[in-house]
Amino acid sequence: MSNSPHSLYGAVEAGGTKFVCALGEPGGRLVAEASFATTTPDETLARVADFFVEARVRHGAVAAVGIGSFGPVHVRRGAPQYGRIARTPKPGWEGVDILGEISRGACAPAAIDTDVNVALLGEARHGAGAGCDDVVYVTVGTGIGAGLMANGRIVYGFAHPEVGHMHVPKLAEDAAFAGVCAFHGDRCIEGLASGPALRERWGTGAENLPPEHHGWTLQARYLAALCVNLLVTCAPRRIILGGGVMMQAHLFARVRMSLCELLNGYLDFAAYGIGLDELVVPARLGGRAGVVGALELARDFATAG
Amino acid sequence: MSNSPHSLYGAVEAGGTKFVCALGEPGGRLVAEASFATTTPDETLARVADFFVEARVRHGAVAAVGIGSFGPVHVRRGAPQYGRIARTPKPGWEGVDILGEISRGACAPAAIDTDVNVALLGEARHGAGAGCDDVVYVTVGTGIGAGLMANGRIVYGFAHPEVGHMHVPKLAEDAAFAGVCAFHGDRCIEGLASGPALRERWGTGAENLPPEHHGWTLQARYLAALCVNLLVTCAPRRIILGGGVMMQAHLFARVRMSLCELLNGYLDFAAYGIGLDELVVPARLGGRAGVVGALELARDFATAG
Repeated sequence: MSNSPHSLYGAVEAGGTKFVCALGEPGGRLVAEASFATTTPDETLARVADFFVEARVRHGAVAAVGIGSFGPVHVRRGAPQYGRIARTPKPGWEGVDILGEISRGACAPAAIDTDVNVALLGEARHGAGAGCDDVVYVTVGTGIGAGLMANGRIVYGFAHPEVGHMHVPKLAEDAAFAGVCAFHGDRCIEGLASGPALRERWGTGAENLPPEHHGWTLQARYLAALCVNLLVTCAPRRIILGGGVMMQAHLFARVRMSLCELLNGYLDFAAYGIGLDELVVPARLGGRAGVVGALELARDFATAG
Repeated sequence: MSNSPHSLYGAVEAGGTKFVCALGEPGGRLVAEASFATTTPDETLARVADFFVEARVRHGAVAAVGIGSFGPVHVRRGAPQYGRIARTPKPGWEGVDILGEISRGACAPAAIDTDVNVALLGEARHGAGAGCDDVVYVTVGTGIGAGLMANGRIVYGFAHPEVGHMHVPKLAEDAAFAGVCAFHGDRCIEGLASGPALRERWGTGAENLPPEHHGWTLQARYLAALCVNLLVTCAPRRIILGGGVMMQAHLFARVRMSLCELLNGYLDFAAYGIGLDELVVPARLGGRAGVVGALELARDFATAG
């Protein structure tokens, strides 16, 4: 398989509402890019194929394609369902072999992972986690999800872990809130601190809650509890917080302060040469994390080939 | 470095009250073994050296020594303090270069890790986690600690993670209990479910609490919350529960039942081909895990060169 320094790789960010296709060098420039709305599988995947046909004509063979996909998607390599969309309410998409279709369309080998793991890969190598082998990337939005990297490798276990269902202590002052998690009500972080939880608790979305609103104190405290549990489980060098809710920049200082309060002297960060400012950080690549990470995934796959 | 299939490796289980030394083949028979009380560093490490001198005379060169040590001990390879005991109330042991002393005494290269990580290595390769790349080994005793293996490798992050300080929801019926964690009171699992927590709450130790005592229902529920959080973070194939409190065999069925209740339908284990009986399991090597794991650590170190 071609692996010259000038190989071009493909990236597909397969989102629930939008697809982004790109061609470029991992960590470097893009030579082509396109985005379009997610419609039916046939139509959407045909547009992906069209993109790569044109890309091949203009730029030559594609070494490999990396795909970051909306979920649920089977991402365990070697599993019979690898590369297929799992049970989903999204009409027509259930069971679609998104990996196979894209690979055939691009005439190139392809690898797939969840959108959050691909964003993690992008941020860990070229963004807020650059230089670190142990990184967690958390998105706080409609749901709460995370990708985990330990020893430089993404952690899967037997399933793609979904940190949103982590159980955390409820705050006494929040006793009246029932939580919004369909499985765990107010016991898990998604039930307490996702975008819908904020909306349900305060009657308005995160984007309309003023910075001085007391809700942010609660929000910071819950996110800090999540950080505590990630720290005591795998001691990542970076906890990168992204997603819609984290667009509120003032949240980061609050989360760091709550984290100190919750730890209460446990974990002497200074002794490890770690500042809180570099431990809990915003995503740095923003909307680019998916494409940057997908190119990395493609290269990893080609070079492990 | 010698790495023939017949190489003999050394193992040292450096406990706070007892040292165990052994010589043998990883995963196989021991040709020599000795144990003695932990006293002063000079005396204790001299006995370790004596053991290996005699072992060399009888059995030839030792390829490498693996050490599982009481803590806190610096286990990050390459760090300037690697192999030294950190701040400890144990008289005379603070700052002792346990790795260097044992390596010189055995005339062999040596590697060190925490006692819990070494036990994890033993259980993951030859015990309750055999065949699995993603394993957590939890000890529930005077404290609650854990070793985490992801993708076949032990997870360190920037520090040795101490899962005992994981924050979990408190049970309503347990509201009156203040917890015993010096840092987190009743917010972390060690404060709520360690041996001392049981003693403080019920006025007697775990070993005296009859199986029908309501305390075990609470205990199972808290341990199940810990399991939930480990599952959503790294989805291990095995959660191995060991340590003094887990000597109560009836606890396992209760923890599995509470785990199902807490998950409330989230995580379809059957779809992953996983039975709860093989997910949450007792340690299998018992008192042997330390020596078995230390031999593995020694071999890993020697073969990684």
